[in-house]
Amino acid sequence: MNQPEQTTSYDLTAPAFAAHEGGKVEVRATKPLRGFEDLSLLYTPGVADVCLAIAQDPSLSRRFTARNNTVAVISDGTAVLGLGDIGPLGAMPVMEGKAVLFKHFAGVDAVPITIESGSVDELVDAIARMAPSFGGINLEDISAPRCFDIERRLRERLDIPVFHDDQHGTAIVALAGLINACRVVGRELSSLRVVIGGAGAAGVAVSDLFQLAGVEDVIVADSRGIIEPGRTDLVAHKQRLAEQTNPRGLAGSLGDALVGADVYVGVSGGTVPEEQVASMAQGPIIFALANPTPEVHPDVAHRYASVVATGRSDYPNQINNVLAFPGIFRGALDAGGVQITEEMKLAAAQAIADLVPEPRADLIIPPVFQDGVAEAVAAAVAAHAG
Amino acid sequence: MNQPEQTTSYDLTAPAFAAHEGGKVEVRATKPLRGFEDLSLLYTPGVADVCLAIAQDPSLSRRFTARNNTVAVISDGTAVLGLGDIGPLGAMPVMEGKAVLFKHFAGVDAVPITIESGSVDELVDAIARMAPSFGGINLEDISAPRCFDIERRLRERLDIPVFHDDQHGTAIVALAGLINACRVVGRELSSLRVVIGGAGAAGVAVSDLFQLAGVEDVIVADSRGIIEPGRTDLVAHKQRLAEQTNPRGLAGSLGDALVGADVYVGVSGGTVPEEQVASMAQGPIIFALANPTPEVHPDVAHRYASVVATGRSDYPNQINNVLAFPGIFRGALDAGGVQITEEMKLAAAQAIADLVPEPRADLIIPPVFQDGVAEAVAAAVAAHAG
Repeated sequence: MNQPEQTTSYDLTAPAFAAHEGGKVEVRATKPLRGFEDLSLLYTPGVADVCLAIAQDPSLSRRFTARNNTVAVISDGTAVLGLGDIGPLGAMPVMEGKAVLFKHFAGVDAVPITIESGSVDELVDAIARMAPSFGGINLEDISAPRCFDIERRLRERLDIPVFHDDQHGTAIVALAGLINACRVVGRELSSLRVVIGGAGAAGVAVSDLFQLAGVEDVIVADSRGIIEPGRTDLVAHKQRLAEQTNPRGLAGSLGDALVGADVYVGVSGGTVPEEQVASMAQGPIIFALANPTPEVHPDVAHRYASVVATGRSDYPNQINNVLAFPGIFRGALDAGGVQITEEMKLAAAQAIADLVPEPRADLIIPPVFQDGVAEAVAAAVAAHAG
Repeated sequence: MNQPEQTTSYDLTAPAFAAHEGGKVEVRATKPLRGFEDLSLLYTPGVADVCLAIAQDPSLSRRFTARNNTVAVISDGTAVLGLGDIGPLGAMPVMEGKAVLFKHFAGVDAVPITIESGSVDELVDAIARMAPSFGGINLEDISAPRCFDIERRLRERLDIPVFHDDQHGTAIVALAGLINACRVVGRELSSLRVVIGGAGAAGVAVSDLFQLAGVEDVIVADSRGIIEPGRTDLVAHKQRLAEQTNPRGLAGSLGDALVGADVYVGVSGGTVPEEQVASMAQGPIIFALANPTPEVHPDVAHRYASVVATGRSDYPNQINNVLAFPGIFRGALDAGGVQITEEMKLAAAQAIADLVPEPRADLIIPPVFQDGVAEAVAAAVAAHAG
């Protein structure tokens, strides 16, 4: 682990620390232990019959253990929020926080687990080995590009849902927002010119899912500019982007890509200068998702844009993964622990979008605490299983 | 994983299955999530300050995450109860059961985890990688002799308590029983001739701890007889036993060892014939701990013995690990997550024994549900920290 570059002084009396005192989750029994009779059923000798039955018919583990309602939230601490590689101990509060959200929004029992980082092989093996304990695996805050290989290999090796939320949760909620933004401005996805700023976990997934949903003109830019086949500095996942995006074959900077663009999705951090925002097509859609500092300040964005979304709760249109991941796993578990497919992601995005029957510029996405979001997402996911 | 040899038919309507429906544990939030203000403290953006603080001072993870009250209960399913290698899915009900007991008796949050088995290297690495998530690791139902190396290497690699309960939990409670049995029969530990039937995880640990407590004459027998230096079939841990036990240099069968012995501790399964029991010294102490079928039936044992203990709850003197492991970890966590030492094990055994102020032949060990056992054990363990 690398120490974070900045040395922050922290105030242990601040409210966030008080909210974390002793941690945020506990493990509780769901069955009463009142005396020897309960003990003999929940533990020896009664438990032996249940163990043997599961050993003979492994599908019974979904019924007679908590596994089918339990998801591991796993990180190696290498890309925690915007903080970078702060290690597994530092990552734990985020994982516990996600466990709180999983239970609150979808009744899913989530076990926060942070692991010592290592090679892709080592991480895949460590995670795969513990998979029999869980009904699903939510990967979190793992640095790119390793996160792509880790997720792919775990999906190949395991028969339970594996979902890297930084990729797909972000993409699903962004797509939901884009669907409704299009309704607000009267456009079709297929007619949009979309520029994605950032080619990490979120940027790649947003690009993939937007295209799958029908967006035909997607350009992705990283810190060195537009990703296109002429670049010689591209790692594997960016080479794939170069082949599968940028149909007009642009080269140059993010600013070059933004000229005339209808949509900007920022998932990179950094700042987009106002003159570049001004160069976009008239009345663009701007999703500036970096947190806590959006790539385009909402006040600046509103000077030009028809629709503005951020990752922040103190502005309208918060693109927040919590709208997706609890319902995604709820649906996959309800469907018997199935793998999460591209069709399910599209259906989840549409379900979230549909929760706003009459989208407006300041209401393209349901608020985080709106009732029924996880239920609607879960139903959409489960409907596309098997 | 090997399928269990017997093909048992199971009755899913039996009470043990009803008690396991949906599993036995859940993960719950310990902090309220009432709206955006809570969300911003428990999750982004507030969580970032806590993450950064922990990254800078890792000791803060014990205060601001649930880690310092959380123990992983980990098995690879290779030696589950007396059922053998039934695999990780089959082992899960036992791990969940232990989680129920950890919380009930000591307020410890225990996370049940079963892992795909593999080489010692693979298991050590998989377990060590997830260690940052936990304040301690309770190993469980891992086959011998691998369990010895796995525990030793994890203890060397990690700075949190690692404790293989099948070894040390059994040894601690057996020693507690032996201490009080000696008081009943008016003997000293140092004067006893002790025979241990079984050289697996429990047998090795009982032998080690009894000697550490002052028993000088310990003989261990496995299925091929007395473990002694003349045998050429001994794996490493049994070679060590051959060097460190059997001071009178006996060779032969378990029956040969039992002639004139004061104490028999059965941790092997199998059956000791009545004539061998009859050959022991007058009024011996018999701990027949195999479950559910003791090596010596209590009715037979009582024809000869002064004191009889079993692993069963339906006879007096139940030698049950649950008297030890909750308090052991409670004490180690209370002391700051320290490694569990030999001194702590001895102190725990003495604390359990002391909970029976006036031992009788039918009361050498406190009942499982006696109040204050875990508290007394925890205090004894914590008192020997640092």
